[in-house]
Amino acid sequence: MPQLGLLPRKAWAALLSQILWSPYTACTRAVSSHSQVAEAVLTSQLNPNQEKSDFIIKTPKGTRDLSPQQMVVREKILGMVVSCFKRHGAKGLDTPAFELKDFDIAGQFDPMIPDAECLKIMCEILSGLQLGDFLIKVNDRRILDGMFAVCGVPESKFRAICSSLDKLDKMSWKDVRHEMVTKKSLAPEVADRIGDYVQRHGGVSLVEQLFQDSRLSQNKQVLEGLRDLKLLFEYLTLFGIAEKISFDLSLARGLDYYTGVIYEAVFLQTPNQAGEESLRMGSVAAGGRYDGLVGMFDPKGHRVPCVGLSIGVERIFSIVEQRMKVFGEKVRTTETQVFVATPQKNFLQERLKLIAELWDAGIKAELLYKNNPKLLTQLHYCENMGIPLVVIIGEQEMKEGIIKLRSVASKEEVTIKREHLVAEIQKRLSDS
Amino acid sequence: MPQLGLLPRKAWAALLSQILWSPYTACTRAVSSHSQVAEAVLTSQLNPNQEKSDFIIKTPKGTRDLSPQQMVVREKILGMVVSCFKRHGAKGLDTPAFELKDFDIAGQFDPMIPDAECLKIMCEILSGLQLGDFLIKVNDRRILDGMFAVCGVPESKFRAICSSLDKLDKMSWKDVRHEMVTKKSLAPEVADRIGDYVQRHGGVSLVEQLFQDSRLSQNKQVLEGLRDLKLLFEYLTLFGIAEKISFDLSLARGLDYYTGVIYEAVFLQTPNQAGEESLRMGSVAAGGRYDGLVGMFDPKGHRVPCVGLSIGVERIFSIVEQRMKVFGEKVRTTETQVFVATPQKNFLQERLKLIAELWDAGIKAELLYKNNPKLLTQLHYCENMGIPLVVIIGEQEMKEGIIKLRSVASKEEVTIKREHLVAEIQKRLSDS
Repeated sequence: MPQLGLLPRKAWAALLSQILWSPYTACTRAVSSHSQVAEAVLTSQLNPNQEKSDFIIKTPKGTRDLSPQQMVVREKILGMVVSCFKRHGAKGLDTPAFELKDFDIAGQFDPMIPDAECLKIMCEILSGLQLGDFLIKVNDRRILDGMFAVCGVPESKFRAICSSLDKLDKMSWKDVRHEMVTKKSLAPEVADRIGDYVQRHGGVSLVEQLFQDSRLSQNKQVLEGLRDLKLLFEYLTLFGIAEKISFDLSLARGLDYYTGVIYEAVFLQTPNQAGEESLRMGSVAAGGRYDGLVGMFDPKGHRVPCVGLSIGVERIFSIVEQRMKVFGEKVRTTETQVFVATPQKNFLQERLKLIAELWDAGIKAELLYKNNPKLLTQLHYCENMGIPLVVIIGEQEMKEGIIKLRSVASKEEVTIKREHLVAEIQKRLSDS
Repeated sequence: MPQLGLLPRKAWAALLSQILWSPYTACTRAVSSHSQVAEAVLTSQLNPNQEKSDFIIKTPKGTRDLSPQQMVVREKILGMVVSCFKRHGAKGLDTPAFELKDFDIAGQFDPMIPDAECLKIMCEILSGLQLGDFLIKVNDRRILDGMFAVCGVPESKFRAICSSLDKLDKMSWKDVRHEMVTKKSLAPEVADRIGDYVQRHGGVSLVEQLFQDSRLSQNKQVLEGLRDLKLLFEYLTLFGIAEKISFDLSLARGLDYYTGVIYEAVFLQTPNQAGEESLRMGSVAAGGRYDGLVGMFDPKGHRVPCVGLSIGVERIFSIVEQRMKVFGEKVRTTETQVFVATPQKNFLQERLKLIAELWDAGIKAELLYKNNPKLLTQLHYCENMGIPLVVIIGEQEMKEGIIKLRSVASKEEVTIKREHLVAEIQKRLSDS
């Protein structure tokens, strides 16, 4: 793999540790896409048309300057991804996902279980994003290679034909076929045989159908791949996500280190959304099995089973951003829950005592750094910052041992006993 | 400030944005020490003996390789710091803490309110760390300068004498005095006058005492500083933290861009801990008022009020790490709450269905990627990984519609109805 020569071995190992997920030991380990490097790698990885050198050069993409609003959105997306990884037993963020030592316990897991969990994780993350319906295309490198072989593609052309295939999500089969025949010099009848397969997609029934295919069923690699896919679909059904997964013979993925199952997720445009041309959708998550890759860095050359899962955080971030623009959504840049206000002059002391009580109860609270702020200024501040609750304290309230609690959105005010304030705020916050 | 010349203006502005906290607009903004740059700057900043060039060069300190265990500890510390910042209305992580535009609304806040909040935040963070008792030393740059002046220190020697003073937490007054007189050529009687002041510390009563001091009370700068400190202590009392703060005339802080109040936090060693020599304590948080610094980068040269607060995350991390070594504490590297186990062969399907139910309920769950794992292997895995609960499913349980829930620590097992499983787990997790 001469492309890898661009990076020193150590850098590649570090890169791998960011993008791979090894089910190698018994525990599940997932890689978070938290660091900027990982994000950028992930994003590039999702663009199969990029050269590998680009794949590396693009890594500092995440360093672009972000506004506080953008930071909030980004943190929310990352938070969701990370919490899903943790739900599946992931080790801490930025943790190398695997170590090269111990790699003699290889094969300690049974087939397709971690692969199925990868797809489950992907489904949980994509559902959690609430960006609409999605589909995960699945294929297998062995089925792809075997299909090329039985169709009559010379082995030397596998990679070139693969990269043409990868364009099927943007181009029609007619155009892809044209490229294969004219640019890649593939015999037209071979291209037609490929076309017959790669335009099919479906669930486990397609797997069964291909088992019966007279040509494919002669190929050992294809049979291995189909057997694994059948098992995978069994597990996906148990996980309740089979209907989100489409076996798609056109899915090729640009990176040639995949050795088994490969997958790629796309958001589906609803008829409504199709009108909003500004919302560009695309592949937002991807992964697969890379059993050969890690072995290249192992001094003993062991073949190390690995499944990888990458979330294109930067791309998801762009989609969310565009969508927010289209729908005019606002983002809060702070998490402040309560604002401490007063209509009275010389009430700083009471405000400070009160806010300390809120902070000590773990409530996120703010006040204006002024001795005598105007009430309207304080209320405007809450509206601008999206702070939901205002506590209002004044002389009359002090005398009576009460306090006013105001909802910024509804402008409703209730009067409550001073000693019930913290409990009432906590109740309201947990209800909302 | 020729030292700043080492960095381009933009880099400095970025650095500042990491370490400063501007109470400039009405909202409170805090700087997280989340990024590696910030951490490193913070750590160096806490070592007053370092030159400024070091201060910059040391920035990539946070990039050292961390084990999964170390990552967990680091994330916990950072999480605590960040959640405290958010409680005080901080904007998103890695967000520039201030922008140079708008800076014409300067002076929109009243004195000492944000300074008091900085100290409150520091107290909350240091208490939250649960590393024992702590103290925050407070002084004021104006009091320090004024004191030097009334003691007879030539203005050209202020910085040199300041840096000697900074050593008072490691050296005796006798040794510091010796350095001042022999190395810094200070007149012995001037050093003695300084010694009379810098060995004093206390609360607001010391402020009152110095107001009466015949020499100090003649100095305008000192009076300004004392007036502010008096107001600060009033607010600290309202915040309920006055007893954690010590007005300490020896606190000088190495960085000379402070213009007003300065503070520095140390953990206090209890008699017990003093025996554990391996636990090195030191300054873990610091800050102050930097009204002049930002103006240097403002084209119009506006004087911009700023208060800064830095948490020495790397140092705190070291303390926690050492302490964990001493006490032999273990760290979990995953957050998995429940393990799905079986004593039975060929039970993978049931395990997968069950674990998907747990994941979908938001429960962090794992299983072994084996068709037929041994029960003992599964239970050992839970012990090793610190997973608290095990769900055990077998043929008998299936038939009766029940399931076993086992506490890994106590080895107690209860039998519950299958349909109550998720609720029971959620109840146990929220109780613990």
